[in-house]
Amino acid sequence: MRAFHRRKPESVGQSPGLLVYVGQDRDFHPTLSSISFTAGEVTEACCELPDSGPPPPDDGRVHLINIMGVHEPELIRRVGEWFRLSPLVLEDILDTSQRPKAEELDDGQAFLVLKSVDFSAEKGQLIEEQVCVLWGPNYVLTFQESAANLCEPIIARLRRGKGRIRTAGPGYIVIALLDSIMDRASVTLGKIAAEAEELEDELAENPDEDTLRVIYRLKREILFLRNALSPMQEVLTQLSGDEVGEFSEASEGYMRDVRDHTAKVVDEVKTLHDLLTAMLELHISLAGMRMNRTIKFLTGVATIFIPLTFLAGVWGMNFKGMPELDWEYGYLAALGIMTAVGVGMAVYFAKRKLF
Amino acid sequence: MRAFHRRKPESVGQSPGLLVYVGQDRDFHPTLSSISFTAGEVTEACCELPDSGPPPPDDGRVHLINIMGVHEPELIRRVGEWFRLSPLVLEDILDTSQRPKAEELDDGQAFLVLKSVDFSAEKGQLIEEQVCVLWGPNYVLTFQESAANLCEPIIARLRRGKGRIRTAGPGYIVIALLDSIMDRASVTLGKIAAEAEELEDELAENPDEDTLRVIYRLKREILFLRNALSPMQEVLTQLSGDEVGEFSEASEGYMRDVRDHTAKVVDEVKTLHDLLTAMLELHISLAGMRMNRTIKFLTGVATIFIPLTFLAGVWGMNFKGMPELDWEYGYLAALGIMTAVGVGMAVYFAKRKLF
Amino acid sequence: MRAFHRRKPESVGQSPGLLVYVGQDRDFHPTLSSISFTAGEVTEACCELPDSGPPPPDDGRVHLINIMGVHEPELIRRVGEWFRLSPLVLEDILDTSQRPKAEELDDGQAFLVLKSVDFSAEKGQLIEEQVCVLWGPNYVLTFQESAANLCEPIIARLRRGKGRIRTAGPGYIVIALLDSIMDRASVTLGKIAAEAEELEDELAENPDEDTLRVIYRLKREILFLRNALSPMQEVLTQLSGDEVGEFSEASEGYMRDVRDHTAKVVDEVKTLHDLLTAMLELHISLAGMRMNRTIKFLTGVATIFIPLTFLAGVWGMNFKGMPELDWEYGYLAALGIMTAVGVGMAVYFAKRKLF
Amino acid sequence: MRAFHRRKPESVGQSPGLLVYVGQDRDFHPTLSSISFTAGEVTEACCELPDSGPPPPDDGRVHLINIMGVHEPELIRRVGEWFRLSPLVLEDILDTSQRPKAEELDDGQAFLVLKSVDFSAEKGQLIEEQVCVLWGPNYVLTFQESAANLCEPIIARLRRGKGRIRTAGPGYIVIALLDSIMDRASVTLGKIAAEAEELEDELAENPDEDTLRVIYRLKREILFLRNALSPMQEVLTQLSGDEVGEFSEASEGYMRDVRDHTAKVVDEVKTLHDLLTAMLELHISLAGMRMNRTIKFLTGVATIFIPLTFLAGVWGMNFKGMPELDWEYGYLAALGIMTAVGVGMAVYFAKRKLF
Amino acid sequence: MRAFHRRKPESVGQSPGLLVYVGQDRDFHPTLSSISFTAGEVTEACCELPDSGPPPPDDGRVHLINIMGVHEPELIRRVGEWFRLSPLVLEDILDTSQRPKAEELDDGQAFLVLKSVDFSAEKGQLIEEQVCVLWGPNYVLTFQESAANLCEPIIARLRRGKGRIRTAGPGYIVIALLDSIMDRASVTLGKIAAEAEELEDELAENPDEDTLRVIYRLKREILFLRNALSPMQEVLTQLSGDEVGEFSEASEGYMRDVRDHTAKVVDEVKTLHDLLTAMLELHISLAGMRMNRTIKFLTGVATIFIPLTFLAGVWGMNFKGMPELDWEYGYLAALGIMTAVGVGMAVYFAKRKLF
Repeated sequence: MRAFHRRKPESVGQSPGLLVYVGQDRDFHPTLSSISFTAGEVTEACCELPDSGPPPPDDGRVHLINIMGVHEPELIRRVGEWFRLSPLVLEDILDTSQRPKAEELDDGQAFLVLKSVDFSAEKGQLIEEQVCVLWGPNYVLTFQESAANLCEPIIARLRRGKGRIRTAGPGYIVIALLDSIMDRASVTLGKIAAEAEELEDELAENPDEDTLRVIYRLKREILFLRNALSPMQEVLTQLSGDEVGEFSEASEGYMRDVRDHTAKVVDEVKTLHDLLTAMLELHISLAGMRMNRTIKFLTGVATIFIPLTFLAGVWGMNFKGMPELDWEYGYLAALGIMTAVGVGMAVYFAKRKLF
Repeated sequence: MRAFHRRKPESVGQSPGLLVYVGQDRDFHPTLSSISFTAGEVTEACCELPDSGPPPPDDGRVHLINIMGVHEPELIRRVGEWFRLSPLVLEDILDTSQRPKAEELDDGQAFLVLKSVDFSAEKGQLIEEQVCVLWGPNYVLTFQESAANLCEPIIARLRRGKGRIRTAGPGYIVIALLDSIMDRASVTLGKIAAEAEELEDELAENPDEDTLRVIYRLKREILFLRNALSPMQEVLTQLSGDEVGEFSEASEGYMRDVRDHTAKVVDEVKTLHDLLTAMLELHISLAGMRMNRTIKFLTGVATIFIPLTFLAGVWGMNFKGMPELDWEYGYLAALGIMTAVGVGMAVYFAKRKLF
Repeated sequence: MRAFHRRKPESVGQSPGLLVYVGQDRDFHPTLSSISFTAGEVTEACCELPDSGPPPPDDGRVHLINIMGVHEPELIRRVGEWFRLSPLVLEDILDTSQRPKAEELDDGQAFLVLKSVDFSAEKGQLIEEQVCVLWGPNYVLTFQESAANLCEPIIARLRRGKGRIRTAGPGYIVIALLDSIMDRASVTLGKIAAEAEELEDELAENPDEDTLRVIYRLKREILFLRNALSPMQEVLTQLSGDEVGEFSEASEGYMRDVRDHTAKVVDEVKTLHDLLTAMLELHISLAGMRMNRTIKFLTGVATIFIPLTFLAGVWGMNFKGMPELDWEYGYLAALGIMTAVGVGMAVYFAKRKLF
Repeated sequence: MRAFHRRKPESVGQSPGLLVYVGQDRDFHPTLSSISFTAGEVTEACCELPDSGPPPPDDGRVHLINIMGVHEPELIRRVGEWFRLSPLVLEDILDTSQRPKAEELDDGQAFLVLKSVDFSAEKGQLIEEQVCVLWGPNYVLTFQESAANLCEPIIARLRRGKGRIRTAGPGYIVIALLDSIMDRASVTLGKIAAEAEELEDELAENPDEDTLRVIYRLKREILFLRNALSPMQEVLTQLSGDEVGEFSEASEGYMRDVRDHTAKVVDEVKTLHDLLTAMLELHISLAGMRMNRTIKFLTGVATIFIPLTFLAGVWGMNFKGMPELDWEYGYLAALGIMTAVGVGMAVYFAKRKLF
Repeated sequence: MRAFHRRKPESVGQSPGLLVYVGQDRDFHPTLSSISFTAGEVTEACCELPDSGPPPPDDGRVHLINIMGVHEPELIRRVGEWFRLSPLVLEDILDTSQRPKAEELDDGQAFLVLKSVDFSAEKGQLIEEQVCVLWGPNYVLTFQESAANLCEPIIARLRRGKGRIRTAGPGYIVIALLDSIMDRASVTLGKIAAEAEELEDELAENPDEDTLRVIYRLKREILFLRNALSPMQEVLTQLSGDEVGEFSEASEGYMRDVRDHTAKVVDEVKTLHDLLTAMLELHISLAGMRMNRTIKFLTGVATIFIPLTFLAGVWGMNFKGMPELDWEYGYLAALGIMTAVGVGMAVYFAKRKLF
């Protein structure tokens, strides 16, 4: 998990529109998969990139083209030529440190930058992936950072063909992608919430340093989520307000659903953040209470025995004229005095509630 | 109390409008109760669901139909056919992890998702129940999660027939439901406030670890309430602004009342949250003060007796040439010196306010 | 001081407009006092309630009618009939747990719910009283919780007759009441501020547990004030914006004054809250510093004497072959070694700044 | 520094427009100085108040009249008659506990209440002074609390006559006063910032109780500044938005400057507040770390010597049959065992990183 | 790093438009470099300042004139005459403590005050530089505080001539400067983020006082960044909203990019601030936990040995009648009793979880 993208000092003042990849190193070759469909049928292809042909013709088919891997500027440049994209859009696609945003382009194209947050079981941490989406009257292009296709669930739905997925136009496909991204974020949030609830049990039983570290890690993950999801909410507001993109009427209810879902997740991120803060306070306070208990115990033992040890030391001195040492019941008297002093102090101090 | 609904990973990218129940497992069979009324009389029925007939005809009667239990998608689908609901609405009804919202549907129908918060004496914790409300010109449908009917108070009022409940139309029934939900939240808040005030007394007397845990639990409950009630306030603003639903003039004063009530509860949730934070700070500080007192006491006892014990040790050594051991008043002198040292230290240190 | 009104569970779902008193138990009989005036003269009466006559006729007189005690629903019902009030308004008057609000009623009547905060010397705590105000073209009605009339200062001004109080209409009387409520809140805030400033002196001298409790109490009172006054600010905004009520031109400057005054008080509540938080932090930190000092002292004494006591213990052992015990200057050497060890440790540790 | 003005209980419900001075006691006699100017020349006078003549005639001169001392209601009343001010305005002038505000009066007059914050070297603390400004087509009146004239810098500029000060009208004079007040606040803020930066050095070297108290004092001063300056920002927004007062075109750039300056100061107050909070956290944490170090040292010394002292005590017992006491190398063996135990514990515990 | 600019007391009430340099002392002579270009070619000059000639003529060339060093008022005055700038603008240029702002001037000129934040490796801290930008139809003037030219990257791009840099007009140059300033801020933020992530590793291993100081320093730097960048965001909003300056169509996409970039940086500043706060909490809590461990250990050792040492002291007393001292197995019994007491206490206390 890297919450902050770092720009290299040498990139300061670079020309905008310069096609340079900004992001994590990737060691796979970008691939492109394409699926085109009408209401009736679906054709899939793991197609080669055409040599700068025109955009898909308006033949009644809708094309969903997914590009997995944006770390080869040359590939992106060729896609850019194919779909007549401006250099600024290409730069956005290549720079994986963008903030989510929605933009209306010319010629009826619309462009989104999105962030998908997921929990990587492999790395044991949250990972963020940037997804750029470009759509026009009869096509949707996605540009994804990693080799795994985030559109798989949508492709599966297209294959099944149930509902409006094949008939409601490219805008519907885009919302389906947004929905699947928010579902993923929701699952991730659920995982953090589940860990937080386990922590509550630990707090009740045996809070230790590890509990602290887990609280910190969860808080960090929550900040990471917030950083990624808050601007997503702005994007959805822009889409709902018809500022960007065109959506069929069939898509509107769906869009409202996704927007509500996002609002809910953002609410819960806030609540979970506050809950984690409350947990940390509880942890600190409990640890303090336990230390108090330990210190009180030490105080109890020490204040009883320290004076007694002193008395024993006195009667262990080698002075000549210590008459009590020779008394017949001197020893018993000494033991009695010690007992009395010990009990007396314990009683007296217990009354003053010092331990 | 589960503050966070968790979506299962396998649900990511599911088709919208797919009728799947999302929520707690329920082990009862959904039931449906119905009551229809005119200004003059009331007819109740624990009716069977009709086989996809048309919505209630416009015969001057208003129908309040309550469905208790939304965990059987097939039932919801049939109700959906009956009232010609879109699949997205049905999905919202089946998904109990929705955020409260208000939506205007087609054909003069309006739709609310609400959250009712209650204290379950049985489970000893807060529980949240989702209530969906759908109303049209002459009917109100409610979809509730549990077997207990939240509309009971309204039905009782319908039976009594006092006031405008029978004559002010379905919108009035909906507001009455909102009112009863807010009353319930108010009672729950009052319970938390009462516990908080008891805590204040405990804090004054004998704060311990349990006090801490109770403060934490109350804070958690307050966060839970805030998470449920803040969006309720948005819903009421939408309803008041005539954005969603139609309300008879007779309902408007009532609606304003409910909105004011909600604002008050949300205010108090905020105040109570701040009060609990102040209590926690007080608790931590008091515990710190008490530890200080204990430590100061230990310091007092130790700094007086440690040097004295050392002196006793010195005169208990077995060296040959220790002339003071043989002096006639050596022992008394030693006791005198010890007393002087002890008293001197006590006085000196008390002056420096070290204990 | 009760910051949170608690609704009883049995009241959930009660019919709106049902005339039930919600509030503290009161053991006095409600009274009604009335004063009517023209520019020239003033007539006072401790009148009986007329048996449902019409509202005061438009005879050029303005009537200020104060009802002290709202715990008898029957009385309120009769006043309601007299002034033709809707049941919802009557319910608001009887429910003393309302949030401050302003409402335009029909027939040129306007209605306010206000909160007056005062310091009760008798109970030694803040008390809140709900005041409902209803006014029409030639009368002002106030409904107050307790037996003491909050309008006394206004009545005194009416008697004196200086300024515009007799000529500027009922709206002016209402603003005068608002002004007197804000003055009262201002005095209360001043009392809290004075206590806070005394605390600062205590913090400088001898902070103890009681200081902590006072900080907590003041914070609680500030939260209480904030809860009561923030919605008052909203009410004044509504009145200034001509949303509710009609005010003569002569009243507008006065209203602006009261609004500015309220803004100032709310500002100061915020500042005082932040100041109390800073005080608490200072207190905690000072207590920590003092504990440090005490612990360092203990450490100093203990680290010097513990090794010395060990040495004395060694030479107090009863082994046979301990040649140093028989040396001529053995004892002096031992004392010398002890002194050297003690001084050496003190010097060495002082250098490492451990105490 | 008094952050909170206290209203006396007896002032509750006083008639508005009653001319009573509310503020600090002052022991000097109010003075009035006046300066009138045209583009070409300047005439100064320490004039007597005219006996209720008309406002200055429109003879092409602009009059700046400063009244130092508002604690004599009679004087203010006469000024009020002279400039035909309403009683409410006079009351505002006499009440030095106002919140800064801007008001458009009738007859082309405009009225400001401002707060000037300054550091009084004499009292060693921040002081706040209320300045009321009233201006019309050809005059500016200021009402100041103390004997020192805040307008001195402006009068000096008028004497020099450079720039537009003599030609840009009374509005320009008012802005010049605002500018000089903000400069003063800026200097005060700079003083606090300088103290805060010195504190950082202290924190790095030797943080103690005094550092704590200084942090608290600075925080209090910052809250005081915030309380005074935030409403000043609102006043400037009102002036810029042409809601209050008329300003020559020449004044507008100047006004924008003052507004930007105010925004900057308010920004910095916020940043400084956050910085002080961070400093306090650092202080608390550092003190905690140091206590840890001390406690660890005590633990180290005690855990090594306590068992050794016990051993010495055992061999110092007077039992008969203690064969080891009679062994030839018993003493050396005992010393060896003690050394071994001491070193062993030190090594073992150092490994467990307990000290 | 100086977060707060301090105005000198003597500057209070100075005439606006007075040309005085406010800022850090600089020991270099201001220089001026100029570059003019058409789409086809570029001419550079380290020109002398012309003696108050007219602004560059509209000959189809665009002029970028950089003035490095604003600490000589006379130079700024001459530039002011050359470009016909108002005294207020000149004062803004000379006062390096301005808040970032955008202003439309007369005659089609626009004016920006910007802040560039950079990490100075030499000083080991963040430095802030004020940059004023003035542009008209065919020229861009920059006024920079230090001798290093912030426009170097732009000049390099002009030399290369790729993209639209030479053809898109002066507005485009201004945006390129904004872009390069934000890139620089982004690099700086990245540096802070990198340090913060290193701190996380330290926190996991061995948190000490230095870790605390670094957390504080980073927090201070973040506050510094926030103070500089938040108003930059306002400036960009003004520019995007066409309130200030004219921009060719070619510049708009670029401007949107820079605005998004700024929003992202401001988001990250907020997140990083929250993360550092969480780190501090973790640090404090971890230190507390470790102290607890140490104290528990001390308690363990002390509570076991203190009573044993007391017993040894008792049997080391020199009383006559101590029969157990003479028993055959007295010594063994004593050792046995001590072992039993020690083990017993250890077991008993371990059960009570006191250590």
